[in-house]
Amino acid sequence: MVRRLEAWVVGSENKAPDYGAVLNRIMDDIRPYLGQGRPADYIPALAQVDPMKFGMAVQTADGAAHVVGDGAERFSIQSISKVFSLTLAMRFEGPAIWQRVGREPSGNPFNSLVQLEYEQGIPRNPFINAGALVMTDIIMRHTDDAKGLMLAFVRELAGNDAIDYDPVVAASEWEAGHRNFALAHFLKSFGNIRGNVDQVLDTYFHQCSLTMSCSDLARAMLFLAAGGVMPGSGTTVTSPRQTKRLNALMMTCGLYDEGGDFAFRVGMPGKSGVGGGIVGVLPGELTAVVWSPALNPNHNSLCGMLALEWFTTLTGRSIF
Amino acid sequence: MVRRLEAWVVGSENKAPDYGAVLNRIMDDIRPYLGQGRPADYIPALAQVDPMKFGMAVQTADGAAHVVGDGAERFSIQSISKVFSLTLAMRFEGPAIWQRVGREPSGNPFNSLVQLEYEQGIPRNPFINAGALVMTDIIMRHTDDAKGLMLAFVRELAGNDAIDYDPVVAASEWEAGHRNFALAHFLKSFGNIRGNVDQVLDTYFHQCSLTMSCSDLARAMLFLAAGGVMPGSGTTVTSPRQTKRLNALMMTCGLYDEGGDFAFRVGMPGKSGVGGGIVGVLPGELTAVVWSPALNPNHNSLCGMLALEWFTTLTGRSIF
Amino acid sequence: MVRRLEAWVVGSENKAPDYGAVLNRIMDDIRPYLGQGRPADYIPALAQVDPMKFGMAVQTADGAAHVVGDGAERFSIQSISKVFSLTLAMRFEGPAIWQRVGREPSGNPFNSLVQLEYEQGIPRNPFINAGALVMTDIIMRHTDDAKGLMLAFVRELAGNDAIDYDPVVAASEWEAGHRNFALAHFLKSFGNIRGNVDQVLDTYFHQCSLTMSCSDLARAMLFLAAGGVMPGSGTTVTSPRQTKRLNALMMTCGLYDEGGDFAFRVGMPGKSGVGGGIVGVLPGELTAVVWSPALNPNHNSLCGMLALEWFTTLTGRSIF
Amino acid sequence: MVRRLEAWVVGSENKAPDYGAVLNRIMDDIRPYLGQGRPADYIPALAQVDPMKFGMAVQTADGAAHVVGDGAERFSIQSISKVFSLTLAMRFEGPAIWQRVGREPSGNPFNSLVQLEYEQGIPRNPFINAGALVMTDIIMRHTDDAKGLMLAFVRELAGNDAIDYDPVVAASEWEAGHRNFALAHFLKSFGNIRGNVDQVLDTYFHQCSLTMSCSDLARAMLFLAAGGVMPGSGTTVTSPRQTKRLNALMMTCGLYDEGGDFAFRVGMPGKSGVGGGIVGVLPGELTAVVWSPALNPNHNSLCGMLALEWFTTLTGRSIF
Repeated sequence: MVRRLEAWVVGSENKAPDYGAVLNRIMDDIRPYLGQGRPADYIPALAQVDPMKFGMAVQTADGAAHVVGDGAERFSIQSISKVFSLTLAMRFEGPAIWQRVGREPSGNPFNSLVQLEYEQGIPRNPFINAGALVMTDIIMRHTDDAKGLMLAFVRELAGNDAIDYDPVVAASEWEAGHRNFALAHFLKSFGNIRGNVDQVLDTYFHQCSLTMSCSDLARAMLFLAAGGVMPGSGTTVTSPRQTKRLNALMMTCGLYDEGGDFAFRVGMPGKSGVGGGIVGVLPGELTAVVWSPALNPNHNSLCGMLALEWFTTLTGRSIF
Repeated sequence: MVRRLEAWVVGSENKAPDYGAVLNRIMDDIRPYLGQGRPADYIPALAQVDPMKFGMAVQTADGAAHVVGDGAERFSIQSISKVFSLTLAMRFEGPAIWQRVGREPSGNPFNSLVQLEYEQGIPRNPFINAGALVMTDIIMRHTDDAKGLMLAFVRELAGNDAIDYDPVVAASEWEAGHRNFALAHFLKSFGNIRGNVDQVLDTYFHQCSLTMSCSDLARAMLFLAAGGVMPGSGTTVTSPRQTKRLNALMMTCGLYDEGGDFAFRVGMPGKSGVGGGIVGVLPGELTAVVWSPALNPNHNSLCGMLALEWFTTLTGRSIF
Repeated sequence: MVRRLEAWVVGSENKAPDYGAVLNRIMDDIRPYLGQGRPADYIPALAQVDPMKFGMAVQTADGAAHVVGDGAERFSIQSISKVFSLTLAMRFEGPAIWQRVGREPSGNPFNSLVQLEYEQGIPRNPFINAGALVMTDIIMRHTDDAKGLMLAFVRELAGNDAIDYDPVVAASEWEAGHRNFALAHFLKSFGNIRGNVDQVLDTYFHQCSLTMSCSDLARAMLFLAAGGVMPGSGTTVTSPRQTKRLNALMMTCGLYDEGGDFAFRVGMPGKSGVGGGIVGVLPGELTAVVWSPALNPNHNSLCGMLALEWFTTLTGRSIF
Repeated sequence: MVRRLEAWVVGSENKAPDYGAVLNRIMDDIRPYLGQGRPADYIPALAQVDPMKFGMAVQTADGAAHVVGDGAERFSIQSISKVFSLTLAMRFEGPAIWQRVGREPSGNPFNSLVQLEYEQGIPRNPFINAGALVMTDIIMRHTDDAKGLMLAFVRELAGNDAIDYDPVVAASEWEAGHRNFALAHFLKSFGNIRGNVDQVLDTYFHQCSLTMSCSDLARAMLFLAAGGVMPGSGTTVTSPRQTKRLNALMMTCGLYDEGGDFAFRVGMPGKSGVGGGIVGVLPGELTAVVWSPALNPNHNSLCGMLALEWFTTLTGRSIF
């Protein structure tokens, strides 16, 4: 199949790709794989999602939007929210945040708590749970209503005031999140959470419960493909330097323990969530977002990984 | 200083950068930092190198070459050779190599042997020593003269028949390389080295002893910036897909435990060696190679890291 | 000094040792070492204890009691309480407890949380914090008033109704115990705490706050030297088999990461606490308890370790 | 069955046990378990041993010897030889050896190389392979013929000049011992092997290949039950202090990662080998040696563990 795809691309390589056609093509090709893998099951709200769902959206820096399948349906963005919390923390404190969190991939599958113990309470990066808890703690030093602030920020980025937290999911995280409790208290024991542990967890669980569609996410992340500026409004979200660095972090740390493979196969900065969403960014060009709830053993969307690999193959686009 | 640099770039951002001027500018700016850090001292030949050396070379995909400082002087490329051995292994066995080595960053500083034990003898990636030993073992299955083949390959890529192994360095590696002996025997105990351990080590130590200049390396790596084709001769080194994947691996795994930081600060695929060299690749555009023997605590060239960060800042070039 | 001590012992080796004389001799010999090391400082109540305090008590199975120095003064027994909670859990559930906790020493200093992650929530033994939390959880399944039950049990063993919890210490543990919170939530995430995490922690923190003297402890632990029977009352605390096993666990797991050294130097089952107490048991013969608040780097009483080493040397008594 | 055994013991508890009757009883009781577990298979010579073999020997400090089953047949003592090499190293260098090896149990199953890396080349104790390699290196500093010296030492202890190395097993270790090569080179990289790595390994592999019967071992280890003196000849092997410490190390570190369980179930110092032998010591009383080649998952003789547990239960003897 790969050879066929490449041949197909060759014919169109000097024109701008027809993204609508590309998305339709991916939909067709991905169909046989739908239902492989398993949705996250640690909270009921995620386990009940139809594993056959598949949607995709592309938003180009020059304003064009493309959607296929269930790309307009909202889903639980889970860890994709870590991009928003890192962005807010960067805006509030700038480079000072790097005293409390690292910038290196986390490496081996054992190390959620292990690594934290070795490195004295400094999480390896802002995209593992421990690092995201520290980002949330940072945000909470600058506002009395972190949940409100985060929601307003995401709504503005996506241009959609209907985006909201899912209170059922947020409540479920409280019940299932013993490991996150452990992480938060462990961080506190090293002094790397400064606020109240329960309040930090409450804010964090709400972030994870944000419900957005592929289209929402493609718009909300577009500043990462546009040098930090929202193309529509011209509002500056992050400086060019910050934008470059957010993309670099997504490239090296955005896909759990599958980041090397994502770079290898897909070749663009990305961030995934256990709700089955994956965001990809081609700096200067576009954002591509996919959603398919069934996960592979690395906790990334099985069909989402394939769809983004085919997207960069079909379009011949990659940062490498 | 950063603000000044950015201002300087702004004035030239819409023209192709004057790389010669950029290199001279970096030479000037880097001078105060020369001598900070320490050269590798585990073998005498490296410890004796003048820590004030600094050279840099840029080679563009369209054929232009720029050199400053000691950029034409040969140095011990050490782990940069792992790019050549991975390339050869890919050419011999294609995707089959990924059954014997992973593609994920190695994560924490403890894990040279630790990780190998957890993951049953499968090195995390081809750029850690364990992974490179496996690549060497693969190459040796396909030739009776792996040292000769490697040398001919590198000479052809660089267009310089004077490139050679340094027998003193190779011999020193034998004496100092107890940890590599340990790794090789450990891999053998898992069945992931198939040849004779001593012969694999001999070949590996010779690879590490390769002596090349910044200019040599900039030319030799240029296929990575040119879709796998050597611009001068038009010879295909790797397929477009393989080329993209080599760049992705350098991006995520090329700088020991500082790869995240290199992505964050510099923003291009790279590979470093304890001889003080660092190679950077901007796909489609150029290779940039720097040499300065004094290392930072992560075993990467201290001034080399700064120089490449300034290079991407001054030119406004980055993959992100 | 060692030679002199041995000579001194030789003269008395065929008679029963004069334990009173031995304790006085140890007091004299230990004096130059008092004040070395540092009291635990993670909670104020421990940090404020006079580091020059030193007391010791010996209780023989045939009923004789000896005390020197501050041996009648109460101190915070901290982890020594883990012997009592293990004994109660054994009494309630017998061998079934070994499905929820191991019996092996914990090995390396990194592994409080690390080990728990590797071994899927099964603590290595009942004397590390994680294992003791599981014992507390077990006890709480069998009573609505675990704090009251534990206190009554210890008072009966020691024959002293004045023994009590220290509410200030128990409250401090709540404030300082983030790592214990992390452990408890982590255990809960593996299903190995069944009750309410906060209630388990409250009970556990109270146990640690028990305040007893060397004499109290020497009496309370005497059943371990007497086949499980309290010599005075003849009450059976544990079966002979359980008693042997409690002693075995103290031998291999009772002194944090210094258990091997304690066996090597002292040569009897023991249990230490960060309050500076150490309990030693010579099965069939006696209990020996020492208290000195200043700790060595392994969190064991510096003078307590010396005193017990001299005790077994002077008396020629050891299990080996 | 346990209840029945205890009843049986009660009747005889005030007389010296009839060890011959005890051994016969154990033979009968153990028969249904023979053949469970699996012999070590990493070298052919061990894999070919009949898994139904079972022998046992008891030697009392007052000179009585008892043997049952295959207790006079020689087998590969493997790691039991580590007791002899530690004893020799202690005799040569005394307490100085503790600068190069620790005295703590090794803890978790992952840590052969892991632990060595964390602790900078200092093995946790002399009974793990890494520690035994250091002991061998120490012995080799004091003699030009370590293999000859070791053999003479063991022959004298056992009073049997027919004891010898098994050259086939020693040669097999060379072929199968990649992990030991890795350990030795790793130790060398930390400077904790001073001699030639290959010569240290050759000596070590020969030690492991020693072939002795249960009776040989019971006699050879008897000094450990007799304060360091060989009862027959009156020759001093180790000082009382050294003897006590050897027993303490066997108690805490002698049974791989099952030492806690051995203390718990059996309750005496011991040392096992993958050839299926286990040595137990009751200080002041006797040595008890068992051999049965089929191993449990912790690499200890399955029936050997049971037999020693029943031995201490039937005789009512234990250090606890």
